[in-house]
Amino acid sequence: MRKILVVGAGKSTSYLIDYFLEKAELEKLHLTIGDINPNGISSAIGNHSACTVLQLDVFQDEARRKIIANNDIVVSMLPARMHMKVAEDCIAFAKHLVTASYVSKEIKTLDGQAKEKGLVFMNEIGLDPGIDHMSAMQVIDRIREKGGKMILFESFTGGLVAPESDTNLWNYKFTWNPRNVVLAGQGGAAKFIQEGTYKYIPYHKLFRRTEFFEIEGYGRFEGYANRDSLNYREAYGLEDVLTLYRGTMRRVGFSRAWDIFVQLGMTDDSYMIENSEGMSYREFTNSFLPYSSTDSVELKLRHYLKMAQDDIKWLKLQELNLFDANKTIPIKNGTPAQLLQFILEDSWSLNEEDKDMIVMYHKFGYELNGKQHQIDANTVVKGESRTHTAMAKTVGLPVAIATLAILNKKITSPGVQIPIKKEVYDPILEELKDYGITFKEYDVPYLGYNPESVYDK
Amino acid sequence: MRKILVVGAGKSTSYLIDYFLEKAELEKLHLTIGDINPNGISSAIGNHSACTVLQLDVFQDEARRKIIANNDIVVSMLPARMHMKVAEDCIAFAKHLVTASYVSKEIKTLDGQAKEKGLVFMNEIGLDPGIDHMSAMQVIDRIREKGGKMILFESFTGGLVAPESDTNLWNYKFTWNPRNVVLAGQGGAAKFIQEGTYKYIPYHKLFRRTEFFEIEGYGRFEGYANRDSLNYREAYGLEDVLTLYRGTMRRVGFSRAWDIFVQLGMTDDSYMIENSEGMSYREFTNSFLPYSSTDSVELKLRHYLKMAQDDIKWLKLQELNLFDANKTIPIKNGTPAQLLQFILEDSWSLNEEDKDMIVMYHKFGYELNGKQHQIDANTVVKGESRTHTAMAKTVGLPVAIATLAILNKKITSPGVQIPIKKEVYDPILEELKDYGITFKEYDVPYLGYNPESVYDK
Repeated sequence: MRKILVVGAGKSTSYLIDYFLEKAELEKLHLTIGDINPNGISSAIGNHSACTVLQLDVFQDEARRKIIANNDIVVSMLPARMHMKVAEDCIAFAKHLVTASYVSKEIKTLDGQAKEKGLVFMNEIGLDPGIDHMSAMQVIDRIREKGGKMILFESFTGGLVAPESDTNLWNYKFTWNPRNVVLAGQGGAAKFIQEGTYKYIPYHKLFRRTEFFEIEGYGRFEGYANRDSLNYREAYGLEDVLTLYRGTMRRVGFSRAWDIFVQLGMTDDSYMIENSEGMSYREFTNSFLPYSSTDSVELKLRHYLKMAQDDIKWLKLQELNLFDANKTIPIKNGTPAQLLQFILEDSWSLNEEDKDMIVMYHKFGYELNGKQHQIDANTVVKGESRTHTAMAKTVGLPVAIATLAILNKKITSPGVQIPIKKEVYDPILEELKDYGITFKEYDVPYLGYNPESVYDK
Repeated sequence: MRKILVVGAGKSTSYLIDYFLEKAELEKLHLTIGDINPNGISSAIGNHSACTVLQLDVFQDEARRKIIANNDIVVSMLPARMHMKVAEDCIAFAKHLVTASYVSKEIKTLDGQAKEKGLVFMNEIGLDPGIDHMSAMQVIDRIREKGGKMILFESFTGGLVAPESDTNLWNYKFTWNPRNVVLAGQGGAAKFIQEGTYKYIPYHKLFRRTEFFEIEGYGRFEGYANRDSLNYREAYGLEDVLTLYRGTMRRVGFSRAWDIFVQLGMTDDSYMIENSEGMSYREFTNSFLPYSSTDSVELKLRHYLKMAQDDIKWLKLQELNLFDANKTIPIKNGTPAQLLQFILEDSWSLNEEDKDMIVMYHKFGYELNGKQHQIDANTVVKGESRTHTAMAKTVGLPVAIATLAILNKKITSPGVQIPIKKEVYDPILEELKDYGITFKEYDVPYLGYNPESVYDK
């Protein structure tokens, strides 16, 4: 019997747990789930013969160590900042570790010890980061095996609402952490490379420089730049690439409307608004507009941002009740970002029946035998229900598959790593196909970084 | 003989030192100037019979203590972050202290000890902060003595170039620290109160929401909001005021053009541009614009920021050589702000003959006997030469006058303070008149916060 410990049973673990329990008999697995609040775990899981559910506070050193010592591999689905204690115990008790989080500087320091003990510390093996790494590296390695030289790589991912649940003018609902959506793009200029030139976009222009994508059967999407597209240049071996651009996907028109919040200063998380408790949505909006003894908040906003009355952006703002004098915010001394999040959640929360959708789009430009080529690849994954979301599927399944592969010694290279090696991505991407996660590829003409597909006006 | 120590003999000390030396005989003063680089001090000063010039490194504890112990009062003209060591010695050896810097949290902790020992620790007694406090409080106290109730206070200051030296389209040259000019307004939203409502302007809108002022004989100026207008609400006793707004003055049109740098992201000081050394001005500009295989940098910029070819802003950019492919930047891995500063200094440095100019404008709104009134007050101070600048005059003279007043026991209230008491501001403002620093006052109709004078389109 091989013993798997999952620490943290949050929203993204439904498919992960199902996967282990479905394979439990065949693969001789026993699953232990440790969570701070185990009551939130369904009885179907708790009563499964191959499963033990425990209350676990990861900050209780003794309890944490005892449970980690008693398992063969640990899957940490905790928030990223909580991984370190678990990782240190994995070193101490010689256990493999799997997470879907970015490799932190802290975790990276354990690389030497993990290698010494022959332990696989696999990170960034969820969706983004995760499936993006694997699906990109599979194509990049294939191009290189043919003798091709990479000259362009662009990669975009988005967590959206499925078309059948898409009921508002923004074509958007919160399918994941709303706070991350409100703060997206903050903390520094976006950096990337276009045709050999470093490019920088400040936060207040980020949502005005978008790129378009077409996905068969789903129509048009847009993408805005992530903060640092250059992070994986070395890991992917793309030091000489002419264009390197990573970003976030939304439905067309989202970014231009979101830019209104940025322009007004509503996404600022660096200061508190005094006496925000009881403030109306209208008063909140007015805080960012000049005083006038005669003009309405509506007129001031339209004038300030030069918006016509029949502008779709204007209708989007109205849909969010931004000018409502009766709806009030209950948050005490909140930052603008916190207050905006409250207003957005009022409109953008998922209903019981709503389904989410994940989209990913890669572009690979390369030279082969003196000619330039391009492959575009994309995937769309739709959620099944409110618990079995596309997000939980695309985050949880790669984690689960990697965990079993490590137990079965199919993934053996030790150390702190991300899934960019063939030994890792090939079997995982293959198995993901059984769950409907497949990429469609298209040979398209190479145009270089194509300004025609970019909206920057 | 009363002994004055001036620590730090930088640009702003010319008038300060002249003042002490002119009064030396009559007032029985001996001046000691301690500076890290005393060779920069003119021989006329060094050879003066009432003056001793010393090499002093304030981080050398023993030397610093010895010299402070040997004087009656210390004037610290060091950069603000270096005051603390000097201030602690002033407590230890029971010496008064005068600075033109903002009261730091550190300095504030010495208030109790200063009071115990009967020491005056006078701060913020330069121009801004300094003359702004004194000239504002004199009017505010006068209004209150008449029984008036303050309902509006606005205050703007600017360090500019004198009209006779105003030779560029920006009507601006660097008369003070260029780095502070490039970073002005960063670090958080501007906060103020207009007609009873808190208002917030994000950095990227700051230079588009300006207010106009007219100064007799000098024409029009504009002002943009300082980051925190609310800091002095309590000190000035303006808790119930309806409008409270502080800002920086420029010549009309400066802010709209400066906003281009903000919009492009050129004022960002938070990241380094790789390989900036040897970059042309044109390449620097292009870093912030989208890639195009066909369009020029000029066209891309005009298109990105929607600027016509005959727009004065466009001519201002050309005047700075922003599109020059031959002029290069020698800075290695600089931040955008550092590189922009280099480009601006290339055009905006003062010539040998250039003179600077200080402008300050206050508005005081009040209610008296059921009626609303307003007083506008302003001053213009022009520099005499490159060493005897308006900045050195307006920063140095209030410091010098306060220092002598403390020695002569005309200012006696002990503790860490700023010049907002009548005993302090009345004699200092009176004496400043002898040096041509006078405020003109105008009774004007009270209009409240007047949107007609505000440009926000």
